[in-house]
Amino acid sequence: MSRELYDLCGRDERLRFSPFCWRVRMALAHKGLDFTTRPWRFLDKEALAFANHDKVPVLVDGDQVVTDSFDIMRYLDDRYPQAPLLGEGASHQRVLFFKHYVERSVTPALFKIVALDLLAAIHPDDRDYFRDTREARFGCTLEALHQPEQGRAQLKQALAPVYAQLKDSLFIDGDAPSGADYLLFGSMMWAYTVSLESLVSTDDEVDQWFKRMLEVHGGIAAKAITVRDLGE
Amino acid sequence: MSRELYDLCGRDERLRFSPFCWRVRMALAHKGLDFTTRPWRFLDKEALAFANHDKVPVLVDGDQVVTDSFDIMRYLDDRYPQAPLLGEGASHQRVLFFKHYVERSVTPALFKIVALDLLAAIHPDDRDYFRDTREARFGCTLEALHQPEQGRAQLKQALAPVYAQLKDSLFIDGDAPSGADYLLFGSMMWAYTVSLESLVSTDDEVDQWFKRMLEVHGGIAAKAITVRDLGE
Repeated sequence: MSRELYDLCGRDERLRFSPFCWRVRMALAHKGLDFTTRPWRFLDKEALAFANHDKVPVLVDGDQVVTDSFDIMRYLDDRYPQAPLLGEGASHQRVLFFKHYVERSVTPALFKIVALDLLAAIHPDDRDYFRDTREARFGCTLEALHQPEQGRAQLKQALAPVYAQLKDSLFIDGDAPSGADYLLFGSMMWAYTVSLESLVSTDDEVDQWFKRMLEVHGGIAAKAITVRDLGE
Repeated sequence: MSRELYDLCGRDERLRFSPFCWRVRMALAHKGLDFTTRPWRFLDKEALAFANHDKVPVLVDGDQVVTDSFDIMRYLDDRYPQAPLLGEGASHQRVLFFKHYVERSVTPALFKIVALDLLAAIHPDDRDYFRDTREARFGCTLEALHQPEQGRAQLKQALAPVYAQLKDSLFIDGDAPSGADYLLFGSMMWAYTVSLESLVSTDDEVDQWFKRMLEVHGGIAAKAITVRDLGE
C-alpha cells in the first residue's frame, strides 16, 4: 500500500521545515510506518484540491486522505493502534492541551528568533505570499518581529515547565518519546532547519532532549537537510 | 477508617486557601472519599513532626501518612483506583507536565494579582514568616510584587492554551473534571479565596470553567469560606 506525505519545501526542494509536517513525519516513524514525501510549496493550492484542503501536511494512506497534523496523529492511532501517540480519554485531552501550549506559548517565541531566516529559507516565488500572510497575522513587519535575543528570553520562560519535566525523565512523555515530544519537536525542528540561531543554552535539559530527538527512530531528523547543509 | 487532611488556615480558622490543599480536597471529593480537615498554620512545624514533613497538605489515611499534594494524588489513584486522577504512563507524564505549567507559568501571575490580599488573609502571627520567605524567594518586597493589572495581563497570556482547550470541552480533562482541572483549580481557588480582585474577564471561558469547578462534587468549593464571607 502506498503512503505519501505532502510536505512543505523551501528554496531547495530538500529543505523541509514545516513544524506540522515534522510532527507527522515523527509520528509515522514512531509507528514504524514507511512513507514517501511529495514536496509542496505554499502556492500549489491546486495540488491539494483532491483533499479539499489548502495546507500541508496531507497524508494519503492507501485510499484514505487525512489533513491537519493533529487529526493525522489521531488517525494513525485509530488505524494503527500499536505504540499510541495521543492515547485516549484524559491522556488525549492532556496532549491536546500540550499542542495548544506549543502553538500559543512556544512557537511565537521561536518565530521571533528565526523570522528572517525563515523568510530566506522559503522558495523565492513564495516569499511575497509568506510575508503578506504572516505580517497580517502578527500585525507588524517580519523585520520588526525578528528579535532573536528577546525571542530567546521569551522561549526560556515559555519552556519553564518543560525544563522541570526533563529533570525527571528523558522525554516529555516518559522513558520514550511519544505525542507530546513530537509536538514540541516539530516546532523546534522547524526553527533548527531554517536558522543557525541558538534556541536554548548549549547542553541544557532542552538542548539535550532535542539532540536525543534528532537521533530517535533511526535518526530520521538528524539525517534531514538543514540550512547548515546548503550554500548561499 | 479515619481520614484527615492537615490544611493551611488563615486569620480566620475557617479560611482555607492553600493551592496544594485545594488540589487534595478536590481529589478526595473526586474519589468520593469522606475526610475531615485539621487547621494548620505555617509555624506549627511540631504538629507535622509525625510525618517527617514541615508543610501541608499531609494526609492521614488510616495508618498511611502521605505528604506533598501530587504524591497524595498519586497515592489516591494507587489505593483507590476508581475514577483515576492522574492515570498511568503517558497520561501521568502529561498531567505532571500540567502541574509544572501551573506552578511555573500560572501561579506566579496569580501571585502578582493577590500578593497583599494574601498577606492580609494570613494569620497575624504568621505574617512575618510569610513575608520573609516569599520576599527571599521573589527577590523583592510583597508591595513591589503586588501589581494586579500586570498580573492579569501575564495570567491571560499564560492561560492562552487553557482558553484554546476550553473552546472544545467543558473541562481541561474532557467532559468531566480530573487531575489537570484540580491542579489549575487549586491555584485559582487560592487567589479567589483571599482576594476580591478579578482574575480573568467576567464570563470568559476560564471564568465559566471556574464557576463550573466551584459547583462540582456537591459544591465543595462553592461552600468554602472566602474573604467575601468575613468582615474586616
